[in-house]
Amino acid sequence: MTENAALPGLMQHHGLTVDRFLDFAAQWHGDVPVNGRDTRGGREETTYRQLHRRARQLSAALRATGIRSGDRVATLAMNHLRHVEAWYAIMGVGAVCHTVNPRLFDEQIAYIINHAADRILMVDAAFLPTVGRILSGCPSIETVIVFPDGSADGLPADRPAACIDYEAFLQAGAGLSVAWGEVDETAACGLCYTSGTTGAPKGVLYSHRSNYLHTLASLQHDFMNLSATDSVLPIVPMFHANAWGLVFSAPAVGAKLVLPGARLDGASLHRLIEEEEVTFSAGVPTVWQGLLQHLAASGGRLSTLKRVLVGGAACPEALVRAFQDDHGIEVLHAWGMTETSPVAAAAAPTWFTRRLPVDQQRRQALKQGRPMFGVDLALKGDAGDPLPHDGETPGYLMVRGATVAEHYFGDDREILDANGWFDTGDVATIDPHGFMRITDRSKDLIKSGGEWISSIEIENHAVSHPKVAMAAVVGVEDERWGERPLLVVQLVEGENSSAEELLGHLEGRIARWWMPDAVMFVARVPLGPTGKIDKKRIRAELVGDAA
Amino acid sequence: MTENAALPGLMQHHGLTVDRFLDFAAQWHGDVPVNGRDTRGGREETTYRQLHRRARQLSAALRATGIRSGDRVATLAMNHLRHVEAWYAIMGVGAVCHTVNPRLFDEQIAYIINHAADRILMVDAAFLPTVGRILSGCPSIETVIVFPDGSADGLPADRPAACIDYEAFLQAGAGLSVAWGEVDETAACGLCYTSGTTGAPKGVLYSHRSNYLHTLASLQHDFMNLSATDSVLPIVPMFHANAWGLVFSAPAVGAKLVLPGARLDGASLHRLIEEEEVTFSAGVPTVWQGLLQHLAASGGRLSTLKRVLVGGAACPEALVRAFQDDHGIEVLHAWGMTETSPVAAAAAPTWFTRRLPVDQQRRQALKQGRPMFGVDLALKGDAGDPLPHDGETPGYLMVRGATVAEHYFGDDREILDANGWFDTGDVATIDPHGFMRITDRSKDLIKSGGEWISSIEIENHAVSHPKVAMAAVVGVEDERWGERPLLVVQLVEGENSSAEELLGHLEGRIARWWMPDAVMFVARVPLGPTGKIDKKRIRAELVGDAA
Repeated sequence: MTENAALPGLMQHHGLTVDRFLDFAAQWHGDVPVNGRDTRGGREETTYRQLHRRARQLSAALRATGIRSGDRVATLAMNHLRHVEAWYAIMGVGAVCHTVNPRLFDEQIAYIINHAADRILMVDAAFLPTVGRILSGCPSIETVIVFPDGSADGLPADRPAACIDYEAFLQAGAGLSVAWGEVDETAACGLCYTSGTTGAPKGVLYSHRSNYLHTLASLQHDFMNLSATDSVLPIVPMFHANAWGLVFSAPAVGAKLVLPGARLDGASLHRLIEEEEVTFSAGVPTVWQGLLQHLAASGGRLSTLKRVLVGGAACPEALVRAFQDDHGIEVLHAWGMTETSPVAAAAAPTWFTRRLPVDQQRRQALKQGRPMFGVDLALKGDAGDPLPHDGETPGYLMVRGATVAEHYFGDDREILDANGWFDTGDVATIDPHGFMRITDRSKDLIKSGGEWISSIEIENHAVSHPKVAMAAVVGVEDERWGERPLLVVQLVEGENSSAEELLGHLEGRIARWWMPDAVMFVARVPLGPTGKIDKKRIRAELVGDAA
Repeated sequence: MTENAALPGLMQHHGLTVDRFLDFAAQWHGDVPVNGRDTRGGREETTYRQLHRRARQLSAALRATGIRSGDRVATLAMNHLRHVEAWYAIMGVGAVCHTVNPRLFDEQIAYIINHAADRILMVDAAFLPTVGRILSGCPSIETVIVFPDGSADGLPADRPAACIDYEAFLQAGAGLSVAWGEVDETAACGLCYTSGTTGAPKGVLYSHRSNYLHTLASLQHDFMNLSATDSVLPIVPMFHANAWGLVFSAPAVGAKLVLPGARLDGASLHRLIEEEEVTFSAGVPTVWQGLLQHLAASGGRLSTLKRVLVGGAACPEALVRAFQDDHGIEVLHAWGMTETSPVAAAAAPTWFTRRLPVDQQRRQALKQGRPMFGVDLALKGDAGDPLPHDGETPGYLMVRGATVAEHYFGDDREILDANGWFDTGDVATIDPHGFMRITDRSKDLIKSGGEWISSIEIENHAVSHPKVAMAAVVGVEDERWGERPLLVVQLVEGENSSAEELLGHLEGRIARWWMPDAVMFVARVPLGPTGKIDKKRIRAELVGDAA
């Protein structure tokens, strides 16, 4: 059969570029506030119209200093107004905004900057000491631009030599015209490195198109669900997978945007939420626990906050109960990773789960959830075989879609399988309602007698014991079973316990064959740079496994 | 300055094609009901999984009968299950689904089918008499496929010769494999002709990409706002600008989909909404007025319906009040046209309008609203000059964006201005909050002494007189002023009135210089094929203006 040439549709061309989010907000919601706190807690305020004007001026200054399409400009900064300006200025002019995580070790920051070959580094004054230590080892950096911190005019005394004040640099763009947003939609606009607890950090190079599509898809009711009447607080940092897209999605709907600065303790967040009439916010569980503890201790209330999105780590049930039962605030548990832009799934109810008994609805809401349109998930076995969605069979969690990485930056290795699936490195189940639940990291999985044991599930039960401060379960080689679980425990200060007491606590809570063969008590469970338990170090230092 | 080549982002390629909506629903919400009524009111039910299977089978049957990429397949049908199957089957195989409006006159239907060169016509049994009258004049049609209407097995006795039963045709695809959705995103997938009250009907050729982007953008909170827990009833027909996208957007979120069939009277809709637990619906004002009148007369309640979207014509305030005050149902007034896919704007509140006094909020909600991200609006004067957004200055309403037509099908004429703006043919104001209000059609605008008089505004006040059944205001040539308004009135049956009485009613309601110079009483105000007042005929037949 001969085939026709495709008949092209006759609709306008409209490149999917991220500068359009700010253009739209400035044009249609120009007076809507974009307020924040500087890194010392001082109040700052602007509007979408002013922010747009300054971002374009900064674009002109970047051009004038020789920044060209595709060049990388790094930021080492918390979420504040000027960081948002810089983000749009860099992307709007066709360059790549590389958000570097200031919580990493010096050598990791230097590695990432060198790997990305960043030409400019924009940095919070508070992080200048870091820059002072690494700058001589980062030859690609031509200019360091310092975000003022509200403490004084000008630059701090202990600055490295090549620093320029942000406002002075911005001034250089005054009166210059600049081509803004005239970029191919497949061009890169953002770069974010994974924290690299296994191997060297790897860079995810987002395109305008992938971020545009992520923004539209994540605005759906069952995901971000933002409206023009919302006041949106991204507590999750911009260097943490694009603040989950909120710096794009708030202007896309004309919502008020609130940037928290550096003070993320419970009392500061409570004050900020009340003062800025925040209705929606997003962050990791530890941030929310800090806020809830502050509220419990102070008797404080949240008078405007309606919904919170929890992600970045599994959401504890106590957190959901405290928000919903004590404060009447809706909690949405979402899942994603740097490689998925990041939002890929969330645990909002469906036509069927809405009709389940309340306790089952709660259980569904604590899962990582079901995929957003545009993202597909699959479970695969050791041989790449598809596994059933029965809510019980664990498999390697695979993901694909418009918002999923295809390669890492500067790395030719294939990261997708023959069918385009990216291996998340997680092990998960998917239930018949389509809700995915992560049961382990695949590198932490314990394979005993050919079956998989979830280290996370044992850990969750272990930390529910009042004497346990932190627990990690790792696999130890075993002649008969291949591997057997070892429970590593850090007790609450001043407490004493025994293997018998803790294993007794696990009895009836986990399958008998999952029961750890031994308990090791340690003074400190080793943590990685982002505060997660570092099982690689546990295996290397405590168990003596070089793998 | 030399420019770098763009640095491409490293994200997965994922074509923006509409088959993905049904793929997603079948995979992740496979058991969710898709229920409907056949054209005789009989209940039909399926699920996304079954609908997906049958759509793919129909794709295979279309391929087997020689349908190739880019070919046009017409439907002449109401919203029902098999129409949705056919829609996805046609688009999924790379062909173009041409939804023809059965309410048009025979000669218009024949013109449109010939202009599109449709190869197959899929038709409701109820519309076979129309097909019988036009088929001999439509030589491109090779096959007529008849959607069964639940009345009997097989085909009706008065069928044209070349008819095949839909189920028999579908059967031919059983067991055949078919390439599904492997289409370039810029390829055409849908074709819809404007009703053509001025000149010949013009076809808008939607691309996969434009429909995909329209779906994602319109799912936002301030527009469709659909969730997986919704039951969605598109009353607006699929032949009326894609049922405002709901046949795409309901599966995109996994919502239950309800197709109403042919019975759109108040009693039938009330029963359907209750039986299918409908939570969201969309339709033109007259449909809602029918439902509300039925509820008022019967004392019926709507126990599940939460939100309705009103579009296609200006939304009367009484309708909003009845829904909100009597039934606690949220009303969203939206605006768009065939050339804009169609949703372009809606009147949901913003950060500022939410804080206005309640009566001002109501007034904002009755405007056509503010644009959806991805759509831009502008007001232009006679000389193409930009006009202020002051809520008072009327201008020609221009629109552009990813979901806006660039050309009409089979017509090389430019329809965009030098900056890519499409002239909507409407005259509107835009207020400082960004809310657009249509004040006239530009062809109906009356230019008097260099100033514009809104015919619509005078008509709205005229029909508020209890004796007036229908009113139309047209411009009449005037030596001194250029044009002056003439009020054409059809009185309520059995009533008598005078020019003095009606003009007296307008006094104080409109500016003095807007006052019509004369009133013409007619037995019937002429209507066009879609039920709108036909001012072209009024001017030609009643006023004697040949323009």
